[in-house]
Amino acid sequence: MQKYKIPGGMCDYLPDECYMKNLVEDKILAVFKSDGYERIETPSVEYHGVFAYNGVFPIENAFKTTDTDGNLLILRPDITMPLSRIVSTKMNPVFPLKLCYLGNSFSLLADEYRYREFTQAGLELIGEKSYLADAEVIILAIEALKAAGLDDFLIELGNTEFLRGLIYECGLDERGEAELIKSVGKKNNFAITEILGRAGVSAELSAVITELPTLFGEDAAEKARRLTAGNKRSGDALDELERIYGLLAALGYEKYISIDLGLLNSMNFYTGTVFKGISLHFGAAILSGGRYDDLFTDKGGAAIPATGFAVGIKNLLTALAGNGKILSKPPCDCVIGGRREHAVEAFKKKTELKARGFTVSYTFIDDEIKLKKYADAVGAKRSVFIDKRR
Amino acid sequence: MQKYKIPGGMCDYLPDECYMKNLVEDKILAVFKSDGYERIETPSVEYHGVFAYNGVFPIENAFKTTDTDGNLLILRPDITMPLSRIVSTKMNPVFPLKLCYLGNSFSLLADEYRYREFTQAGLELIGEKSYLADAEVIILAIEALKAAGLDDFLIELGNTEFLRGLIYECGLDERGEAELIKSVGKKNNFAITEILGRAGVSAELSAVITELPTLFGEDAAEKARRLTAGNKRSGDALDELERIYGLLAALGYEKYISIDLGLLNSMNFYTGTVFKGISLHFGAAILSGGRYDDLFTDKGGAAIPATGFAVGIKNLLTALAGNGKILSKPPCDCVIGGRREHAVEAFKKKTELKARGFTVSYTFIDDEIKLKKYADAVGAKRSVFIDKRR
Repeated sequence: MQKYKIPGGMCDYLPDECYMKNLVEDKILAVFKSDGYERIETPSVEYHGVFAYNGVFPIENAFKTTDTDGNLLILRPDITMPLSRIVSTKMNPVFPLKLCYLGNSFSLLADEYRYREFTQAGLELIGEKSYLADAEVIILAIEALKAAGLDDFLIELGNTEFLRGLIYECGLDERGEAELIKSVGKKNNFAITEILGRAGVSAELSAVITELPTLFGEDAAEKARRLTAGNKRSGDALDELERIYGLLAALGYEKYISIDLGLLNSMNFYTGTVFKGISLHFGAAILSGGRYDDLFTDKGGAAIPATGFAVGIKNLLTALAGNGKILSKPPCDCVIGGRREHAVEAFKKKTELKARGFTVSYTFIDDEIKLKKYADAVGAKRSVFIDKRR
Repeated sequence: MQKYKIPGGMCDYLPDECYMKNLVEDKILAVFKSDGYERIETPSVEYHGVFAYNGVFPIENAFKTTDTDGNLLILRPDITMPLSRIVSTKMNPVFPLKLCYLGNSFSLLADEYRYREFTQAGLELIGEKSYLADAEVIILAIEALKAAGLDDFLIELGNTEFLRGLIYECGLDERGEAELIKSVGKKNNFAITEILGRAGVSAELSAVITELPTLFGEDAAEKARRLTAGNKRSGDALDELERIYGLLAALGYEKYISIDLGLLNSMNFYTGTVFKGISLHFGAAILSGGRYDDLFTDKGGAAIPATGFAVGIKNLLTALAGNGKILSKPPCDCVIGGRREHAVEAFKKKTELKARGFTVSYTFIDDEIKLKKYADAVGAKRSVFIDKRR
């Protein structure tokens, strides 16, 4: 019976998991806020046009609905675009503008690692184009995961402009570009070779691009520079990557960073630095982010550079669980029962104990033995039975 | 252009309002949790059947969508029914079970007082039928509004069984009953007289029902008892109401309570005590709740008594604003700028100040005068400019 079913890909958080979820969310938001990021909330439902206007979002994967006037609405697949709507229309920002959010997004596509509704905590650093801005948000990504209690994670760091430089050299058509980007993202060398061969790309350049998926780890940037010596755009991307890495290393964060020049996230969204957070105990990204200089515009319509990321809270919880880092909800400090005619006294006792900082649950149980059983069942630390005749 | 528009009836919370919203939410949840209520989260999207099975919810007012298998889904109009789904299927509760939630619900109907997506903080006390349970949740409603900073509110208190006793005496058909309930709820005496006249209800009984909308205030219960002397069901409802009022008065809450026997909320949902919270500074209910003994079932399908309420956060914020009780987001303690080549020092300074508990925003501004202007523009208490050459 539908009455008893949860739709596929949706998730209930029962008290223990919900406690841990909220704890992690609060800790991450505290990291963002202490760095000057201000929280904002936007609706779950937006006009189709907020996401559809530039082809960046795969709108076909969104839940659709209509309002009473027949307008096509979609359940937001992301919170960056709604923030962009707000910055363009409702704010008079001084830059840099620092915004953060905690909210649910939606996708019709569900798999082992993705629910159809998923909570994300994220931030946007808007109006600053320098590598320092990318470094700041990567540090905040690291600090957020640390604050949540995760310690076996790595931030993979790349730059989409490195591949864009090579693609430009290839002279591929739009479809070929898209296929190549997809294949590099999937580290699918067979497909890469096939696409480049079909387009008649030189054997030399082909060899470089085929190496892309292997350009990760300690000497990746050095190796990449050797391979792409003549390409200015790719070279500039490497300079940027090394500046960011240098700053992170100077601040003691290098142990969390792994360079990966094959990392693209969703490349038609990002325009430079990209990164994602991975953990030994989870098979997909826990967070992802990077620079997008085409998504935010001011009131006059001019592009504003921006960089940011979002943490997938459920994925983070799964990684934490794999680390044995899940906390149970603390039990109630005290349960109260008592003779029903002494209810006023029971309520007063509850108020008194709450004022002293305890969590107290009045149980309506009028039998002392039953109260003790209830206390055991819910794991309460203490039980108080009110009987004024004594 | 749709790209720049928010759908009708939806709401953005920009930093100041979002700060206040989250503050109020946290305070209310703290009240619930200190009383032993455990938070739970459910999906925004549910199968139609979770709400449609018993005709209690006006499903025609819900946003509809479909999943990839063509199942009809709805954006939840309420969080009580999803909790009922969970209690029936995923929990092995010991009663009383105390659950609370904070989340968004949806309605296609929007008006001056209702957004199409609205945040509610609410709770459910499940498995306890006595008046003590109703008293507990009413006290928590009062404490929640007080914790949020509201002080000009009243809780209107009624009991749907009082009217049900009278309706039974009238012998109306189903449609007549529904019309009568609606008219009493709207305090529309003209319609009440017309419905009762059409059904040939005795002049005596008609006179009593016509008085219903006026049965509020200090002597309402006494007056009601006189008018319905022979009706046991109505009399029992009055007994229940007086027991609750008596307990609330003994605990010093009577100043917040106003008896209203014409109060029904949505009566096909509630089965006894009903209440709503109103404020001088808001034209609709800020919270509403009551007893519903037919909505929760155990794993075997047997009904479990329950009582609860939900606070409309936006309505509460509006009432608080009318009271001059809105707090602005506190400004950033410190903004940092500096020469770009000294960025490492700037990041270290930020970390140092954050460790001392300050909120600190690095601005990327490399000019001391511009930094001071930025500090003024964002209201920061202090600015620090890093220049290692000095």
